Amino acid sequence: MIDIEVLRRVSDTLAERKKADPDSSYVSSLYVKGTDAICKKVAEEAAETIMAAKDKDLKHIVWEVTDLWFHSLVLLAHHGLSVEDVLAEFRRREGISGIDEKKSRGTT
Amino acid sequence: MIDIEVLRRVSDTLAERKKADPDSSYVSSLYVKGTDAICKKVAEEAAETIMAAKDKDLKHIVWEVTDLWFHSLVLLAHHGLSVEDVLAEFRRREGISGIDEKKSRGTT
Amino acid sequence: MIDIEVLRRVSDTLAERKKADPDSSYVSSLYVKGTDAICKKVAEEAAETIMAAKDKDLKHIVWEVTDLWFHSLVLLAHHGLSVEDVLAEFRRREGISGIDEKKSRGTT
Amino acid sequence: MIDIEVLRRVSDTLAERKKADPDSSYVSSLYVKGTDAICKKVAEEAAETIMAAKDKDLKHIVWEVTDLWFHSLVLLAHHGLSVEDVLAEFRRREGISGIDEKKSRGTT
Repeated sequence: MIDIEVLRRVSDTLAERKKADPDSSYVSSLYVKGTDAICKKVAEEAAETIMAAKDKDLKHIVWEVTDLWFHSLVLLAHHGLSVEDVLAEFRRREGISGIDEKKSRGTT
Repeated sequence: MIDIEVLRRVSDTLAERKKADPDSSYVSSLYVKGTDAICKKVAEEAAETIMAAKDKDLKHIVWEVTDLWFHSLVLLAHHGLSVEDVLAEFRRREGISGIDEKKSRGTT
Repeated sequence: MIDIEVLRRVSDTLAERKKADPDSSYVSSLYVKGTDAICKKVAEEAAETIMAAKDKDLKHIVWEVTDLWFHSLVLLAHHGLSVEDVLAEFRRREGISGIDEKKSRGTT
Repeated sequence: MIDIEVLRRVSDTLAERKKADPDSSYVSSLYVKGTDAICKKVAEEAAETIMAAKDKDLKHIVWEVTDLWFHSLVLLAHHGLSVEDVLAEFRRREGISGIDEKKSRGTT
């Protein structure tokens, strides 16, 4: 089993990068460009995830979901949020009614 | 700190649901509808994440990113994959060049 | 050749629907739900266009692009805009540097 | 009123570009890159349309819807289709039940 803490390490590193020189990394430059640039990446990676799924290309699906989660984490960090907030929300749903909690609140 | 294993529990439950009666849950019905229905949800949640970010609504951002990750996990499970595969890919990137690995491979 | 004025008729009808009873039609109900609901439809139809393209299903591609354009027209009408504004922008680009105008302004 | 034939001219030019040297224009290079690259642009422009709408930036909305329609036309041309096919589908819907035809076929 993979060390799940990797997600927390990535999230922590993304928070630190907010203080870094904009030229020093891909992520720092995204922060400087701002919300629209980060959102555009989220949309792009979602589209690529869909295309990988349509291709039934398993390796590519994993790659694109990782990109999608990574840019979600950048978006969270940009707003002072982190993976903890998403985990807490998963926990809250687990507490209420399990994995099918979505069902109870209708379509979203 | 939140119990990060919640992601693994969700992922495991999603795998189990593949054997369940299609009428028994929201997720089972998504599996039956197939790849396009699941991909449509991924696209929808990505769009809602973007709109929450544009609204600067922190609570809503967390909610929508959770929905986005949840449906990513459904897509993975539908293809016989799991959160382990995404964690492994995060680990691989961490191993190579850290969080800015994306930079080295150019635009995606 | 198809009567291209159909686009203008659709656009005009969409503008009229803004005054209609919210319960009277699909479009009226979208206006009442507001920008987020309309944007969600645009995202959804874009995703379905992509999936139809991946399937190489020509009939489905045409169907989904029509849905995408239709909901773009709803979004325009919701903001007091119409197909005329889009046509004017196409004309402006045609005037400047033809179809490859995008090239001159770099990536978008 | 704007000359609506501009859409047909753009569509015709896009069809001609399929025979052009890949290096000669932005559009030619998109054809060479293929379906995924074109779909990615459709997803990107849809996301930018949504963000412009969230900003209530009317000029930007028109710009992004034009970009979205433009890349839809590229996608159609890439599959040997054209604006005529979309117009024909709009006409068909007009014939059946008017603008609210979507309603009759339920959710899409």
